[in-house]
Amino acid sequence: MENKDKPIYLDHAATGPMWPEAVAAMLPFFTERFGNPSGVCRPAQEARRSVEEARRKIAQTLGSVPPETIYFTGCGTESDNTALTGYVNAVRSAEPGKSVHIVVGMTEHPAVLETARFLEHQGVGVSYAAPDPDGVITPESLKKAMRPDTVLVSIMYANNVVGTVQPVSELAAVSHAYGAVFHTDAVQAFGHIPIDPAAEGIDLLSASGHKFGGPKGVGFLYVREGLKLSPILNGGGQERHLRSGTLNVPGIVGMGEAARLSAACMDEAMVRIAGLRDLLEELVLAELPEVTIHSKNVRRLPGHSSMTIPGVTGENVVLMMNLRGIFISAGSACTSGETKPSHVLTAMGLPEKACYATVRITLGVQTTREEIEATAAALIEETWKLRKMHLG
Amino acid sequence: MENKDKPIYLDHAATGPMWPEAVAAMLPFFTERFGNPSGVCRPAQEARRSVEEARRKIAQTLGSVPPETIYFTGCGTESDNTALTGYVNAVRSAEPGKSVHIVVGMTEHPAVLETARFLEHQGVGVSYAAPDPDGVITPESLKKAMRPDTVLVSIMYANNVVGTVQPVSELAAVSHAYGAVFHTDAVQAFGHIPIDPAAEGIDLLSASGHKFGGPKGVGFLYVREGLKLSPILNGGGQERHLRSGTLNVPGIVGMGEAARLSAACMDEAMVRIAGLRDLLEELVLAELPEVTIHSKNVRRLPGHSSMTIPGVTGENVVLMMNLRGIFISAGSACTSGETKPSHVLTAMGLPEKACYATVRITLGVQTTREEIEATAAALIEETWKLRKMHLG
Repeated sequence: MENKDKPIYLDHAATGPMWPEAVAAMLPFFTERFGNPSGVCRPAQEARRSVEEARRKIAQTLGSVPPETIYFTGCGTESDNTALTGYVNAVRSAEPGKSVHIVVGMTEHPAVLETARFLEHQGVGVSYAAPDPDGVITPESLKKAMRPDTVLVSIMYANNVVGTVQPVSELAAVSHAYGAVFHTDAVQAFGHIPIDPAAEGIDLLSASGHKFGGPKGVGFLYVREGLKLSPILNGGGQERHLRSGTLNVPGIVGMGEAARLSAACMDEAMVRIAGLRDLLEELVLAELPEVTIHSKNVRRLPGHSSMTIPGVTGENVVLMMNLRGIFISAGSACTSGETKPSHVLTAMGLPEKACYATVRITLGVQTTREEIEATAAALIEETWKLRKMHLG
Repeated sequence: MENKDKPIYLDHAATGPMWPEAVAAMLPFFTERFGNPSGVCRPAQEARRSVEEARRKIAQTLGSVPPETIYFTGCGTESDNTALTGYVNAVRSAEPGKSVHIVVGMTEHPAVLETARFLEHQGVGVSYAAPDPDGVITPESLKKAMRPDTVLVSIMYANNVVGTVQPVSELAAVSHAYGAVFHTDAVQAFGHIPIDPAAEGIDLLSASGHKFGGPKGVGFLYVREGLKLSPILNGGGQERHLRSGTLNVPGIVGMGEAARLSAACMDEAMVRIAGLRDLLEELVLAELPEVTIHSKNVRRLPGHSSMTIPGVTGENVVLMMNLRGIFISAGSACTSGETKPSHVLTAMGLPEKACYATVRITLGVQTTREEIEATAAALIEETWKLRKMHLG
């Protein structure tokens, strides 16, 4: 079974293709409607209107929050950095000398974990909330990490490795009970499952355009009305002084349109994609009953499947599948050339050997039943081959 | 004279249209070649190759510096912030407790000035080097601002308001004599005039895609080999740990192609555009001899013209020209809704009234002789009208 002519892409958690309609929406802004929204001339005003339209589109998909709560950034990582460092710096400016502590999940993306470490070097106390074996950070686990001086909690909406969706409302409630604000990295969740920051008590929320069919190089940060952040990029004062730098107009327009398109098909897509994902897991388990599916019994992102396949290493499976034109990823590595076992799987209590035997398969809106069937068959075949070769 | 049907865009210092060839180069990366260069699968590898090709293209236009000296960022502002904050933080990490001082030009872009203020709040000493009446920061002026503990000097390659090109080699030499590194914000200069960081002694150089026919939402920072910076965005460790965040592959590809195209036509474009700019100034001076052209007698960017027109206010002129479909800008404001007089003109010694009577006209590679003649005629006509109406 060769798929080289028609590759099968199942690494949507890493990135995916843009909605063609979103590309079409961007195009005029490169060569014709190229104004700088910070200017005063007519092209500038037109660019500004398009940026504000994108802001409204995004706000609408978040339970119709006020559009002014959406701030455009250069990527999800920048949104996370702005949320954590920006809020901590604002607290420190307002109350110099105050003892400042934050809590982050052990299973966060490096954009949050590394920012927490950066803040730790600057004298901020950091505690890590542990997940249960399904990757869920329970309110009880969060409470254990809270301190009287905790000013911010950051727990991702849904995990990038296993897809576990966190009990966000409850975690936000715990945070607020301690007087802390609640940030969620929704880079994997936004555009895929419904999110309502106001109803769920989310104070800060990060998202990234290219994870929901928008372009790379643009993201946004939701900031609850009334919350003050210090900027991490200083300059011309764009985005109401939170994020200086010329606005990426085409990127923002493309992201706004992608948000609208994702929201419009979300109800249908969630059911269909989860159905295909479940089919994949059934097909694999029928032939390889020893496979463990992670987070299967908790709420997961519809397109995520994380599997530990005893007797192989995930990297070899990924390589063999890659040669067949089927693109999946190892359990780890959202990051450049990382070869350590995933800190997410480790935090969930998986032994090191099992971490190395894990693959991540993530579906997108274009994924078809035929692709899933071909992928399951190839995965089973390659597993047997690798086991026979004792290549693990 | 109505230009509504065919608008004349002369605000290229704010932003401009992309090279159509650069747009074409980007297009496949939105929907087909959409891999995440941090991954391991084939689409990821392909994306990585395209990113590295763009890096080589840019390096080649900078006197063929090693490609590894180019780091991709989200915009020029981010490059400036990374250069200043990143270098200062690296020095402080290496030698905790060391007294740290930086020098920036008084006529810098807010991306440098505001970052300097941000660092000042963090205990960094900041001095400001004053320009002469033509906007030139002389080596003597820089020397006056230097201190034994100066670790970094930041002076822009060419000014965004008046276009003055700085004596970069000499300023770098002064910086090095004091043991400081030399950063230059080349956002206005890169792609428009030749730059050779190695020959000129530049240690750090910022540029922005959309200022030379590339896309918005992407920039780069040149970092001389061996120089260590601390990241300002923490996360997955992309760009050799200096700039985390998924690489904006289409943006990087488009910027690389724009750099190549700009370099390919630079010799011809410099002469042609400066010729058109000089024609504009001659036509205006012929009818309005009382107009002052700023920085006329020093080396200027080919496309920049900054004029003080006695008896009018720049904003009114901009408004009237705008109504005719001719887009120019007031002397000030590279920033959102700013109405203060330009800090650049003020630093050059211009009285407040003259600052308010100043307009900036910036040409691009597509600018034609017909557009320049129409612009000069309209500018003269509107000046007379405004003066008659006593609207200033």
